[in-house]
Amino acid sequence: MTDIGIGIAGLGTVGGGVVKLLRDKGTFFQDGLQLPVRLVRAADTNPARFSNVGLDPSVARSADAKDILDDPSVSVVVELIGGTSYAREFVLGALCRGKHVVTANKALLAEHGPEIFGAATSNGVSVYFEAAVGGGMPVIKTLREAMIANDILSLRTIINGTCNYILTRMAEEKLPFDVALAEAQERGYAEADPTLDIGGFDTGHKLAIMASLAHGGYLCYRDIPIEGISRVTKEDIEYARELGYTVKLLGIIKAAGDGRLDVRVQPTMVHADHILASVGGVFNAVLLEGDAVGSILLYGRGAGETPTASAVCADLIDCARDIASGAPQRIAMGFYSHSRTIEFLPLDNVRSRYYLRFGLADRPGALAGVTRSFADHRISIAAMVQKEHTSPDAVPVIMLCAKGMSVPHSRTSSSSMSSEPRHR
Amino acid sequence: MTDIGIGIAGLGTVGGGVVKLLRDKGTFFQDGLQLPVRLVRAADTNPARFSNVGLDPSVARSADAKDILDDPSVSVVVELIGGTSYAREFVLGALCRGKHVVTANKALLAEHGPEIFGAATSNGVSVYFEAAVGGGMPVIKTLREAMIANDILSLRTIINGTCNYILTRMAEEKLPFDVALAEAQERGYAEADPTLDIGGFDTGHKLAIMASLAHGGYLCYRDIPIEGISRVTKEDIEYARELGYTVKLLGIIKAAGDGRLDVRVQPTMVHADHILASVGGVFNAVLLEGDAVGSILLYGRGAGETPTASAVCADLIDCARDIASGAPQRIAMGFYSHSRTIEFLPLDNVRSRYYLRFGLADRPGALAGVTRSFADHRISIAAMVQKEHTSPDAVPVIMLCAKGMSVPHSRTSSSSMSSEPRHR
Repeated sequence: MTDIGIGIAGLGTVGGGVVKLLRDKGTFFQDGLQLPVRLVRAADTNPARFSNVGLDPSVARSADAKDILDDPSVSVVVELIGGTSYAREFVLGALCRGKHVVTANKALLAEHGPEIFGAATSNGVSVYFEAAVGGGMPVIKTLREAMIANDILSLRTIINGTCNYILTRMAEEKLPFDVALAEAQERGYAEADPTLDIGGFDTGHKLAIMASLAHGGYLCYRDIPIEGISRVTKEDIEYARELGYTVKLLGIIKAAGDGRLDVRVQPTMVHADHILASVGGVFNAVLLEGDAVGSILLYGRGAGETPTASAVCADLIDCARDIASGAPQRIAMGFYSHSRTIEFLPLDNVRSRYYLRFGLADRPGALAGVTRSFADHRISIAAMVQKEHTSPDAVPVIMLCAKGMSVPHSRTSSSSMSSEPRHR
Repeated sequence: MTDIGIGIAGLGTVGGGVVKLLRDKGTFFQDGLQLPVRLVRAADTNPARFSNVGLDPSVARSADAKDILDDPSVSVVVELIGGTSYAREFVLGALCRGKHVVTANKALLAEHGPEIFGAATSNGVSVYFEAAVGGGMPVIKTLREAMIANDILSLRTIINGTCNYILTRMAEEKLPFDVALAEAQERGYAEADPTLDIGGFDTGHKLAIMASLAHGGYLCYRDIPIEGISRVTKEDIEYARELGYTVKLLGIIKAAGDGRLDVRVQPTMVHADHILASVGGVFNAVLLEGDAVGSILLYGRGAGETPTASAVCADLIDCARDIASGAPQRIAMGFYSHSRTIEFLPLDNVRSRYYLRFGLADRPGALAGVTRSFADHRISIAAMVQKEHTSPDAVPVIMLCAKGMSVPHSRTSSSSMSSEPRHR
């Protein structure tokens, strides 16, 4: 059969990894799998990158990614530009010209999914995006294929390596947040501007994509309640440990039972015996609960040059298999983006166990007042620790409420976190 | 499009689960995914099972599974008969008649893989077998699709729930092997004749399939060195715990670097910090190490009615997607079974850490003699425990040898096990 020409836009870390894998595994793809994938054009605004990534001289080079769209020998476009403005235009341009798209751009799909999947559907091509969620872990494949016969009852995920690294270091070395963040930046695990990661937005983007696949519909990313980790203190982590818990930034999707979804990104106290508690450092994990299959965990490196490049290449081979077998739209996308808009359960209605930390005035009856007030509101307290006071006029009190409490999202200067009990 | 007719042979536990899932999720498959899968015929030698599984009156019933092969409305055959004689004939019959096959039969594929995949290839149809390995965990998909751009450096797996349940109970409750086995049988986690599971043969079947997919070739199941768990004593488990290890039955595949594979099934001491140590009870896990993606773990229920039925239905949807998109052989099978025969590294050449337990004569200099003999053979000892004697003429000694030792497979009455150090 004729070559399947690949054009790659963006030769940063992941792009370099893809070029390398296509070079190293090219013979296997072409001779072993009989799939004639071939990199024909690469584009990057920085010309130094062409030689940095060791691009073969036979590959055409462009400063302008649009050249890829105009190249008739390209049938699959790999978008690794990032961002949501130029990348959106570029991806839509590729789809409209009948080219398949492989992308690792979670923000683009979370914010413009229906437009992009719609363009793919109407142009008879597909968008492949395994690399957008969880790097080398097969999250998309598991949701759309392996668990297709399941109602997804819940999904809990640690899906941002930067946050997990920071929280792990805070716990292991008792570091304050700022110091752990600086260390992550030094080691290349956090960007100079870390907002997208530590603010929880990257987790939110990935969660929006997973919720769409798990529940067949479009879920508006902007409506997801998102709280990042910048307000988690080393004291919170220390108190959590005393109660037998670890603090993790979780993305959570739970079917509310009435068709609505409880979807949120929140720092969460995870019981030490819970399988997600053992996911440390830059590792990621997705714990899925299906009505037929029960619990499945996927665990691995969710980011980085070669894990993400591995996922991009898996998508390229999937795409090549689809093209070679004459099935360019094997997995119909309409169901996942257009059939309905998923409704949220408002955060005020979410019932969960909550961790509360607050300062209590150091005078007789203060604690009694609080506990009576909890009782009046039918909130039962599962665990409580009162520490010696650290400031002259307040005593730190930590409470873990029993299941069933709802805490409004609007927050005071006290800390609150939901919690996940032990899990087997 | 016209209906995709399904015929199911064998209405035991898994078969019943498949019937139930097809009934419960049928509307979603047909209207949501636009895939008109329909159960048209079921066969079982026991007529009581038709009503036990709540078969819809519209589904044709046969005592003889061959009726499924002769039914022109059946385009996909689900083989849940088990065993390797009648099932082999049945599956080959289906393929020769141009019907696709979905099977959970690991023994059949491990022992007759080349013949079956060859028949599929030459008849223009496919065999789907996600349910054969790891129940609802997407092991096959991960090996053949998600990690396709990776050299699989190693694979370590706990893939038999019966053995893992027995070993977990022996560790938790300090039960002898026989008592834990009886308990497993009572709870339905072990067969009346448990040989296939506790002998390690089921793990071997699954390992043969995984090795074929991971390394592209046929690996003869009968050549795999297999040791089951029936010789593991509660003392072994107790001593392992003292050294910081848990005993697990592992299936291991390691690339030896010279093109040969180290493939074996062995009771193994797994360090308490190793991620596989925390896989308890009937749960299964597969830890894969790829050159690009690093480590990936899949964890879930590897057996049981609904997890296995979930995998069968995922295969049915995969098959329906392939049929609907006109790509009945989307994933070519030749590469995985025919291109070459995989060579083994002989067990005598396998270098690993080993655990040894033996009785030492209770007289001065006995231990010195052993340690000098170890030193003469350049075997270094990583950990050693000598216990007080339990019999009048022998003192139990436990040793953990440092990496690099090879121990012949022929065994004395002493215990030996390989070990897996801590892992991050």
